[in-house]
Amino acid sequence: MTLIEPEVVDPAYAERLDTADPLARFRDEFVVDDPELIYLDGNSLGRLPKATAERLRRFATEGWGGELVRGWEQWLTLPLEVGDRLAASVLGAQRGEVAISDSTTVNLYKLAAAALAAQPGRRVVVTDRDNFPTDRYVLEGVAAAAGGEVRWVEGDPVEGSQPHDVASVLDDDVALVSLSLVNYRSAAIADLRAITAAAHENGSLILWDLSHAAGVVPIHLEAGGVDLAVGCTYKYLNAGPGAPAFLYVRTALQERLRNPIQGWFGQRDQFDMGQGYDPTPGIGQWLTGTPTIIALEAIDEGLRLIVEAGLDRIRSKATALGDHAIALHDAWLAPLGFSLGSPVNDERRGAHVAIRRVDAAQLSAGLTAQGVITDYRAPDSIRFGLSPLTTSFADVHEGLRRLRDLAR
Amino acid sequence: MTLIEPEVVDPAYAERLDTADPLARFRDEFVVDDPELIYLDGNSLGRLPKATAERLRRFATEGWGGELVRGWEQWLTLPLEVGDRLAASVLGAQRGEVAISDSTTVNLYKLAAAALAAQPGRRVVVTDRDNFPTDRYVLEGVAAAAGGEVRWVEGDPVEGSQPHDVASVLDDDVALVSLSLVNYRSAAIADLRAITAAAHENGSLILWDLSHAAGVVPIHLEAGGVDLAVGCTYKYLNAGPGAPAFLYVRTALQERLRNPIQGWFGQRDQFDMGQGYDPTPGIGQWLTGTPTIIALEAIDEGLRLIVEAGLDRIRSKATALGDHAIALHDAWLAPLGFSLGSPVNDERRGAHVAIRRVDAAQLSAGLTAQGVITDYRAPDSIRFGLSPLTTSFADVHEGLRRLRDLAR
Repeated sequence: MTLIEPEVVDPAYAERLDTADPLARFRDEFVVDDPELIYLDGNSLGRLPKATAERLRRFATEGWGGELVRGWEQWLTLPLEVGDRLAASVLGAQRGEVAISDSTTVNLYKLAAAALAAQPGRRVVVTDRDNFPTDRYVLEGVAAAAGGEVRWVEGDPVEGSQPHDVASVLDDDVALVSLSLVNYRSAAIADLRAITAAAHENGSLILWDLSHAAGVVPIHLEAGGVDLAVGCTYKYLNAGPGAPAFLYVRTALQERLRNPIQGWFGQRDQFDMGQGYDPTPGIGQWLTGTPTIIALEAIDEGLRLIVEAGLDRIRSKATALGDHAIALHDAWLAPLGFSLGSPVNDERRGAHVAIRRVDAAQLSAGLTAQGVITDYRAPDSIRFGLSPLTTSFADVHEGLRRLRDLAR
Repeated sequence: MTLIEPEVVDPAYAERLDTADPLARFRDEFVVDDPELIYLDGNSLGRLPKATAERLRRFATEGWGGELVRGWEQWLTLPLEVGDRLAASVLGAQRGEVAISDSTTVNLYKLAAAALAAQPGRRVVVTDRDNFPTDRYVLEGVAAAAGGEVRWVEGDPVEGSQPHDVASVLDDDVALVSLSLVNYRSAAIADLRAITAAAHENGSLILWDLSHAAGVVPIHLEAGGVDLAVGCTYKYLNAGPGAPAFLYVRTALQERLRNPIQGWFGQRDQFDMGQGYDPTPGIGQWLTGTPTIIALEAIDEGLRLIVEAGLDRIRSKATALGDHAIALHDAWLAPLGFSLGSPVNDERRGAHVAIRRVDAAQLSAGLTAQGVITDYRAPDSIRFGLSPLTTSFADVHEGLRRLRDLAR
């Protein structure tokens, strides 16, 4: 007998990749109620880890229900403790540089407003037209409130904004450059080091939104010299719908910048309840109101799986899943008039793949009706989210096969 | 046999009140793990309703775990739906005037900043020295950012700030008056109607913090002509530690004021993800980032118990519990050098009672060690939180008896 190398479009090809996948066993760590469902939207909402379901149950009955207000002895420190764990395992940041707090939107607001307030001579914020909507809206508001404006980078919609695109719009008016590390539509990875360096060379601060990167793309905030960052926890960190977000402030900036939302969780000696806001030293200043503890528990628990799987292995599988999706696109879909909305080069691509055709909205809805969950992003992209801990190569095969059948 | 009227210090007196209590059965609707524990801190963190424990479990496994991203079809509208239910059942507000969003702190920030921005000629915010810390800190920050300052009302620390205290500091510089309806330390109820009227007569807006009132004191935002309000859900609304807060914006102001945090959840046609922030009409504008759904489910479930019990009966029991605590204070504690830190007049008192002595911090800690949970508030108050759905008259009796034994 001769072993025959299966072709990429052969289901046996995906099967072989799944057999060789060192992360395949992690799927069993998640609740998978409907084994027929092909879930390719973990980049919008990650699946529920079984351990998280149990931890939420225990938290409710034993924590809230059992400890009652005494639970705050443990809960009070969770935003910074979970932040430290995220810093070390996912963000490449130091202890005391990351907190869990509020939503990505509110954190963007706090950090961007602080960055502008610290540089009164500069009133322009640079971002790109393809940045995620909440980033664009928040930055527009913050810039306008400071008497300034947003200056737009018009990067390539598939390959993303390049360092020279950004550098070419910088001048002495620019207080802040704010971009997403992984573009929400195309998955293009921005050149964090080069763009950060360009911002610094211009005397501007930089704020990265890591929402589509955290937990699936290795991030090196400290090594990259990044000033500020935010990101969400409900995508590849699997913390549940609307779980609170994280924020990062480089140690050296923690004294210089000031949270515009002066809440009691940012107050030194909070329970003295004294007169006059006096921010606590360090990252704690960036907390605002009472944190939602049940959601913090979910973030903490989800993080354990990331640490156990290892970000390097997660990243390897993400790129392999993406390469497989692109190979199937090329074989099946390109002949049907589709085009790729994501970078082909997997070093410059996050963990989802966008496939474009003018009828993408209807096709994505048609896939949903067949139990293949993707999402549509205007004007013409279907996003296939590839979550290395729960997505199999067989899922990718079957998802794209059904799109082919639907589209021809 | 003659029935002998028991004295107030007789345990039989409390027992008789419990027997006659129409809300006594509601205690069984809550998780009470340790029947020996005397929990008098529901004003800090309300107990866990059994139905909420079950709903959280179901939400995790069936909602997040089962529906996955498809759950957003239901979840997207929850912030305004739960807001509408809260408006009708607890706040005396209209449909479309209340949203669940962020924390009390962040909501205070959004509304206060918007109120100042809408009145550029006025830069002063009036509040009182005894307002809750996060209110004072946020207002200081917002006023300073607008080039203004906070003007302080120095009200009576027990009876609270009276309408004439507030009116006497108003002038044409005052953009906003912001007070708590129920004081966090003394439980004094402010005169919402008279103070609101005084603010309006001065051409100022008013913002009420309802945290210590919502779910236990009838509130009439619409009838009182209130402009803006915020409040938390983890006290008498029993939604769990750090559950998101609510905000109220009177219909007539919804066009005039503008949320400084321009997030995608406040955007018209959110999922078009278009260019340029264009706030959705109505209360939805005051949403910011992705809401924490698990916590919204808990708010919604807790509200059912409030509706079922009825706010009038809840209020009656709260005042009766407070009157009982005060009677015991007078009989047992006043002779030991304690004094009352709350109004005697139960019409002007919320649902907790503060009892003062110079060693309050040690006494409160001593009570905790004995399984009587209260809290200490600087400089000299022990707060006894009286949650009508879960606190019995026997709890009040036993809590104060142990304080007496500890203190003498």
